[in-house]
Amino acid sequence: MEKVEDQNPQQEEDQVVNPWEVSAKDGGKIDYDKLIDKFGCQRLDQSFVDRVQRLTSRPPHVFLRRGVFFAHRDFNDILDAYERGQKFYLYTGRGPSSEALHLGHLIPFMFTKYLQDAFKVPLVIQLTDDEKCMWKNLSVEESQRLARENAKDIIACGFDISKTFIFSDFDYVGGAFYKNMVKVAKCVTYNKVVGIFGFTGEDHIGKVSFPPVQAVPSFPSSFPHLFSGKDDLRCLIPCAIDQDPYFRKTRDVAPRIGYHKPALIESLFFPALQGETGKMSASDPNSAIYVTDSAKDIKYKVNKHAFTGGQETIEKHRQYGANLEVDIPIKYLNFFLEDDAELEHIKKAYGAGRMLTGEVKKRLIEVLTEIVERHRRARAAVTDEMVDAFMAVRPLPNMFD
Amino acid sequence: MEKVEDQNPQQEEDQVVNPWEVSAKDGGKIDYDKLIDKFGCQRLDQSFVDRVQRLTSRPPHVFLRRGVFFAHRDFNDILDAYERGQKFYLYTGRGPSSEALHLGHLIPFMFTKYLQDAFKVPLVIQLTDDEKCMWKNLSVEESQRLARENAKDIIACGFDISKTFIFSDFDYVGGAFYKNMVKVAKCVTYNKVVGIFGFTGEDHIGKVSFPPVQAVPSFPSSFPHLFSGKDDLRCLIPCAIDQDPYFRKTRDVAPRIGYHKPALIESLFFPALQGETGKMSASDPNSAIYVTDSAKDIKYKVNKHAFTGGQETIEKHRQYGANLEVDIPIKYLNFFLEDDAELEHIKKAYGAGRMLTGEVKKRLIEVLTEIVERHRRARAAVTDEMVDAFMAVRPLPNMFD
Repeated sequence: MEKVEDQNPQQEEDQVVNPWEVSAKDGGKIDYDKLIDKFGCQRLDQSFVDRVQRLTSRPPHVFLRRGVFFAHRDFNDILDAYERGQKFYLYTGRGPSSEALHLGHLIPFMFTKYLQDAFKVPLVIQLTDDEKCMWKNLSVEESQRLARENAKDIIACGFDISKTFIFSDFDYVGGAFYKNMVKVAKCVTYNKVVGIFGFTGEDHIGKVSFPPVQAVPSFPSSFPHLFSGKDDLRCLIPCAIDQDPYFRKTRDVAPRIGYHKPALIESLFFPALQGETGKMSASDPNSAIYVTDSAKDIKYKVNKHAFTGGQETIEKHRQYGANLEVDIPIKYLNFFLEDDAELEHIKKAYGAGRMLTGEVKKRLIEVLTEIVERHRRARAAVTDEMVDAFMAVRPLPNMFD
Repeated sequence: MEKVEDQNPQQEEDQVVNPWEVSAKDGGKIDYDKLIDKFGCQRLDQSFVDRVQRLTSRPPHVFLRRGVFFAHRDFNDILDAYERGQKFYLYTGRGPSSEALHLGHLIPFMFTKYLQDAFKVPLVIQLTDDEKCMWKNLSVEESQRLARENAKDIIACGFDISKTFIFSDFDYVGGAFYKNMVKVAKCVTYNKVVGIFGFTGEDHIGKVSFPPVQAVPSFPSSFPHLFSGKDDLRCLIPCAIDQDPYFRKTRDVAPRIGYHKPALIESLFFPALQGETGKMSASDPNSAIYVTDSAKDIKYKVNKHAFTGGQETIEKHRQYGANLEVDIPIKYLNFFLEDDAELEHIKKAYGAGRMLTGEVKKRLIEVLTEIVERHRRARAAVTDEMVDAFMAVRPLPNMFD
């Protein structure tokens, strides 16, 4: 098991997936099955979906029942413990490198909110402003400003303030958190880090120093104001699968310093409008729908840039139907159209050629516009005082209620 | 200048001097002139001693007038600024790897106390418990315990509590200090660190991460509770010359992130009782006089283990005199016998064979016993409340008075 977790997928595979790069072979699609094999994580099959439904007495989130979160590590242990009455805590995060988030950025937060509500557990959200300061060459001040701006988008996802602690590394690193960083750093050689992340000798030492910063929120003792005396509490990390390398290493180290391995529940990448060849790119605004896009922007981007599997002419389309395998409107609806029956209907009609690309796009535009509008309203309601409240280092007495 | 500061002495020289290893060629003496050339620092000549005497209106410390502190970087800039009425602050530190300090450990602190008193300037003292946790494989708790124990020995040197802040890295890293660590880390490549410190790929990443921790106390903004709004304040670092590699790198980085380069004033190594071939070894208790040694221990160690330049027989000694160049009692008296006239007399009489080794050793035993007794009394008077007071994060309103 340790062996599998240790190996480096980059050097053996023609697709590259790590926290800074996601690219498939020859510009093709990411092969997620291969990724699961290589990373050594487990597929999240239907039995998990059913079990979560039973344990939480509510319908599983659309991201769960449609396989958006498709892989895991030790999620079964989390559920076993939960079934025995032992709670856990959630840990997710964001690198605040830009002002405006796109829909892909929201996916882990939307899902984490569902997990928080369904399991009634506390949540820590790390804003890695230190990471972005070092990787993106932003100033400390600008990284911290972006962290606060992004915190507003995160809060807008609806997290429960009585169960949620959001922190910026620049503010929070120190004390118990720093002690855990040192404990982790002692257990990881430079060669290991190079094997996992592919750094070179000309990379600055900040990159080499950073992995422990992202590792230690997995350990409850890093948050003495929340989890004092609860060193045995398990941690579940919802994230996109490109973050797996960080937590593979964390899982290796955890038992050596006396902690549980964090469990993971990992998502697919949200595809770019231009097609499913990897993650969306912040540098190409037309590759993604941003939470700041207007209804007009969304209509334009979907109509102009969404890659579809529809046929060239209406006649051909009526005859052959759309290729749903490559169709971005269908993929986006798969993420965001909550009504299973309607989605099934659209897929059947579109695949058979009875529904046209324009009609599917029209429905997608409605769905996306509603999500973005709802987010915009929620974000506008987030005040600076609310950000301060979520980011205050304070006990959360009702976090397990 | 940058070029000189950058080069790596280890790979070019047959003597090795870095923070973890000091060894001369073939077990011989450290060649300090060569070290100055290779490190690219300056010799601290008599003109500095005279100038310090004039500026501070008090006799220069014995370590200054006898060349124990023998090298510097930009000490002239510190004195120029001081002459113009601009104060500076002092920064020194200790890696708390053992309970009992030996006399060599006290040298920078004794000298720093003199500088604090003479120039009336504030002082920060870093206890690198994180470093020792990582290098010596001590637990976090044990490193912190040793840090507090060592703080008592440091306080016993007589520092002015209204001008002195002592901190443990495990307690203090975070906030402004961590922000500066990230700024430094961004400017230093892994290859540079390897060039300076000689790490290998199998070393853990904690070692690679540590240099910024020791660098940033050189910048006033790392101490907002002391130096808020005083980003222009210069820093002077008294230390043994083996710490030069840390601060060479710090000096390279400082102007790139908007700070003054820290100035350095650097000492010789205090020789082992067995002879001047390097630093004393904590692993050989007979190589050093510890501040915990009894009068009997001191007498035994000096009589039994001190290497001398005396002749084999009294007859030969009377005829040829002692070889002062290799004589440890004379070297120790050079550090610790304050009376210049008496030292001169002893050297002349001993060198001419009129004084015997036993007589010189007897005087040395008296001198060392008095220092150790005085330290023991001072340390016994240091309470836990005093340690808390020195280590409290608090403003020092009278630190420049």
